[in-house]
Amino acid sequence: MQYFEDFAVGQKFASDRRAVSAAEIKEFAARYDPQPFHLDETAAKETSFAGLAASGWHTAALTMRLIVGSEFRPAGGILGFGGELIWARPVRPGDELHVECEILETRLSQSRPGQGIVKLRVTTLNQDGEVVQTFTPALLVPLRPA
Amino acid sequence: MQYFEDFAVGQKFASDRRAVSAAEIKEFAARYDPQPFHLDETAAKETSFAGLAASGWHTAALTMRLIVGSEFRPAGGILGFGGELIWARPVRPGDELHVECEILETRLSQSRPGQGIVKLRVTTLNQDGEVVQTFTPALLVPLRPA
Repeated sequence: MQYFEDFAVGQKFASDRRAVSAAEIKEFAARYDPQPFHLDETAAKETSFAGLAASGWHTAALTMRLIVGSEFRPAGGILGFGGELIWARPVRPGDELHVECEILETRLSQSRPGQGIVKLRVTTLNQDGEVVQTFTPALLVPLRPA
Repeated sequence: MQYFEDFAVGQKFASDRRAVSAAEIKEFAARYDPQPFHLDETAAKETSFAGLAASGWHTAALTMRLIVGSEFRPAGGILGFGGELIWARPVRPGDELHVECEILETRLSQSRPGQGIVKLRVTTLNQDGEVVQTFTPALLVPLRPA
């Protein structure tokens, strides 16, 4: 468990790897993003993805799962206010994702005594080392108890 | 189906409403964001959420589902590069969400002939009209064929 004082700009945390199957892409899409390029290989060929691709929200959810299992373990959990989310490249069936987190900024919260703000860059990469997504959230992290 | 030429700054599109159950919050969290405040009512009481709350990624995924079912239907599908994502308030079991989209900006793509960029503000609200999430994506939308 890491407190605010344990984080410093430039620190990096890595995740495990996680493969993404066509079945999982379609199942997520059927529930949350039912568009042809996420649902069906044949229909996807006719779209600008030119083949089945994961919903960006599926990529984001898988990224979160990888972070939660990583060495990045702020006390009180991973609690974000949001940030800039960029989908750089499609995730395809069979891709294997991993995540790298880098601390960009740390500062005390002005409004919440005993808490700090940690800004991260979360980069999601495929098996070829290509960036598929970046997210730069601000997280709320407690200070170490006195 | 709407082409780039059909969109203008200030246009608004509304979604249906969708209730969120405790079971669905826990199921999503178990897969994608397994942290105590998303998984278990009792454990969640001891966290800064002070009760069960949906993963922000679950809120985002439900928002996408509501948009896909809405009157906002760009030709070629809803294809985003990303944008600024802000979680303003927790989503609780029993909340009923709906989404409002407003066009913020439209411009021709410099790099992709025949395509335009449409920037949106996507606001997700609960049954009390409180904002739970905002997202301001840039989407790729085809021009009307000549």
